[in-house]
Amino acid sequence: KSFVEVPPESHFPLENLPYGVFRLQSGSEARPAVAIGDHVLDLSIIASAGLFHGPILENSDCFNQPNLNKFLELGRPAWKEARATLQKLLSATEQTLRDNATLREKALVPMDKVQMLLPVSVGDYTDFFSSMHHAKNCGTIFRGPETAINPNWYHLPIAYHGRASSIVISGTNIIRPRGQGHPTGNSPPYFGPSRKLDFELEMAAVVGPGNELGKPVDVNEAADHIFGLVLMNDWSARDIQAWEYLPLGPFLGKNFGTTISPWIVTLDALEPFSCDAPKQNPPPLPYLAEKISKNYDICLEVLIKPAGQEDSHVVTRSNFNHLYWTINQQLAHHTINGCNLRPGDLFGTGTISGPEPESFGCLLELSWNGQKSLPLGGTTRKFLEDGDEVTFTGVCKGNGYNVGFGTCTGKILPSLS
Amino acid sequence: KSFVEVPPESHFPLENLPYGVFRLQSGSEARPAVAIGDHVLDLSIIASAGLFHGPILENSDCFNQPNLNKFLELGRPAWKEARATLQKLLSATEQTLRDNATLREKALVPMDKVQMLLPVSVGDYTDFFSSMHHAKNCGTIFRGPETAINPNWYHLPIAYHGRASSIVISGTNIIRPRGQGHPTGNSPPYFGPSRKLDFELEMAAVVGPGNELGKPVDVNEAADHIFGLVLMNDWSARDIQAWEYLPLGPFLGKNFGTTISPWIVTLDALEPFSCDAPKQNPPPLPYLAEKISKNYDICLEVLIKPAGQEDSHVVTRSNFNHLYWTINQQLAHHTINGCNLRPGDLFGTGTISGPEPESFGCLLELSWNGQKSLPLGGTTRKFLEDGDEVTFTGVCKGNGYNVGFGTCTGKILPSLS
Ligand SMILES: [Ca+2]
Ligand SMILES: [Ca+2]
Ligand SMILES: [Mg+2]
Ligand SMILES: [Mg+2]
Ligand code: NI
Repeated sequence: KSFVEVPPESHFPLENLPYGVFRLQSGSEARPAVAIGDHVLDLSIIASAGLFHGPILENSDCFNQPNLNKFLELGRPAWKEARATLQKLLSATEQTLRDNATLREKALVPMDKVQMLLPVSVGDYTDFFSSMHHAKNCGTIFRGPETAINPNWYHLPIAYHGRASSIVISGTNIIRPRGQGHPTGNSPPYFGPSRKLDFELEMAAVVGPGNELGKPVDVNEAADHIFGLVLMNDWSARDIQAWEYLPLGPFLGKNFGTTISPWIVTLDALEPFSCDAPKQNPPPLPYLAEKISKNYDICLEVLIKPAGQEDSHVVTRSNFNHLYWTINQQLAHHTINGCNLRPGDLFGTGTISGPEPESFGCLLELSWNGQKSLPLGGTTRKFLEDGDEVTFTGVCKGNGYNVGFGTCTGKILPSLS
Repeated sequence: KSFVEVPPESHFPLENLPYGVFRLQSGSEARPAVAIGDHVLDLSIIASAGLFHGPILENSDCFNQPNLNKFLELGRPAWKEARATLQKLLSATEQTLRDNATLREKALVPMDKVQMLLPVSVGDYTDFFSSMHHAKNCGTIFRGPETAINPNWYHLPIAYHGRASSIVISGTNIIRPRGQGHPTGNSPPYFGPSRKLDFELEMAAVVGPGNELGKPVDVNEAADHIFGLVLMNDWSARDIQAWEYLPLGPFLGKNFGTTISPWIVTLDALEPFSCDAPKQNPPPLPYLAEKISKNYDICLEVLIKPAGQEDSHVVTRSNFNHLYWTINQQLAHHTINGCNLRPGDLFGTGTISGPEPESFGCLLELSWNGQKSLPLGGTTRKFLEDGDEVTFTGVCKGNGYNVGFGTCTGKILPSLS
């Protein structure tokens, strides 16, 4: 389908074309790209060559930028135009790029020659809490089964503001945070490296055009404000979080690092994998009621590679479609009070847990707060240990092809002494 | 002391020289300034005229910027250099600017000819909860006197992440937010304009040089990372907040708008007004223990002007020195887990309530959650009404002069229908 070779298991066929920002390992400026097979296509080169002919992109400098924010701000018409141009340009039957060796050499760079960077400058990062299974498990662990899920959870997509400065790109090491943790009983808090370091399997929506302060976005127009999705690991220190979170929510238990995958898969590429969102009961208030409410069928996996081992081991398998609140509902809720969004803002879904124990999205749930050990390739885990490398993958299985997210990975380094 | 006239009650004598960003009302680019009396001194003009002679600022373009972030990043040595240069330049005995009519006309602009803008681009905004009186009052209102203050409060400066995008400059109107509120009892949530709109009397510290992800800042070096303070109104919708905040903290009840005052008063200007911070019991953990722990004696006032009235009425008087946790402790705590700060980040202190009912910092406390009415110039208030204009002032009283913050103001507009 493309003249660029795409291995059969690749996450990045012509049907995907996810957006990222890269730099040559030999050193160069950051610039936007799409992934195709094992290559990145440098969009600044394509733009400079005058190959974006559409009315919106022809004279835009949105691809001569160190991040995708300007392209995202242009909105869905620009995204559609770019996708059409790039799918044509990369197709096996189109000569422009295929038969121009000089241009091809400049524009198509092997992935092993590039370093991926944060694709967007994130103004604000919000983390939701939209998997019912996760909410129920956490509530059961901390408050018992009777009051596991707070009554508000069924009426609105609960969320809190996270830290934008500590969002890092896949591959960045994570230093085990230090902080105050509360031992059981009435003893004073201890201080030291977190003893309950965890991952959270999430995805994040990347905001496109924003809205003006004071002007809510209608839930049925919310999708026009969402560019695409990435994988996200919301690293969490459960002992720090448990001690600090009353009454204002998570803070240092979360803000030491949040890892995202480098490639933003667009909603257009995900469309063939859309599916019905779960039926909501009680029915949502009118401002949250969508005419068409959909999720996406995205298979998610978490693997851990302990220090010194060769192999990674799967610790959980989940799916984006386990989310109760949709990303459109999240966006409509976020703006209903007039809060303004900006291009590049990030919405974490919250930990995506499924109903079965094998599909829980974090170690807090998988080990039931350390009450049981997880087998892990000859060893075991309750929480993360120094040297553990955690990798998320996400993929939509098409008929003979994948639309995938690549990986989101990070290794735990020991605390500073 | 200065050749520029400074009225006796002015907040902006030569001893202050707070930093802000302005634009001419006739239209011009945003640029940094200091306030002196009823004028702003355009620092881009001073820099272009080659009047910053010190080693750090002589060749810097930090004042040819639309915000102060670049100047803030340079750190305390640059701030000291700028202050020395500007105090000399503006003094009554210095001819350079005083006797150069052309330069003076360009550089000194009357305040009524300028529009003040946000002084910094805020990467992340954190709101603390550091007044014990406020914590106790809120806890008593929502949970009763027995468990008013959570045990963690005495061990760490509790905080949560706020919204950076909706931080606005003094004078910006605030549209009453809509959202879900929970009526008493078991009825479903209502939806509509907030019925419990409130102000929160806060100040905010503006971060200078940041720190690298993973590298905490020592509490005894924290002051070098703080440029100065502004007044801050953390507008709050109490009914929205009460319904949404479990278990992840405030979100839409807060993020519809946060107003700051335009002039950042530097810690150098505040130094003569420093005073001992309250003794902390239990003693803080070593990472929070300062060699010298200080607060500042800043008198704070909140006034409300109801729609159609001529006059504003004082509703509370408080003082920055009521804070239990110092801004240095806040900063050390914020980074102890490795969280990275960036120049321009904002730390709200939390509502600054004093011990007496006349010094409570928000209507939630002043009206005891709507249980009593506040007299207000012939009318009364439990929460804010449409058309109310809320003004904060803050001032340090020196011997024959003030070091002040000017005002932080905002008017409530009705909800969109
Ligand atoms: Ca999370
Ligand atoms: Ca507050
Ligand atoms: Mg995180
Ligand atoms: Mg606010
Ligand atoms: Ni004048």
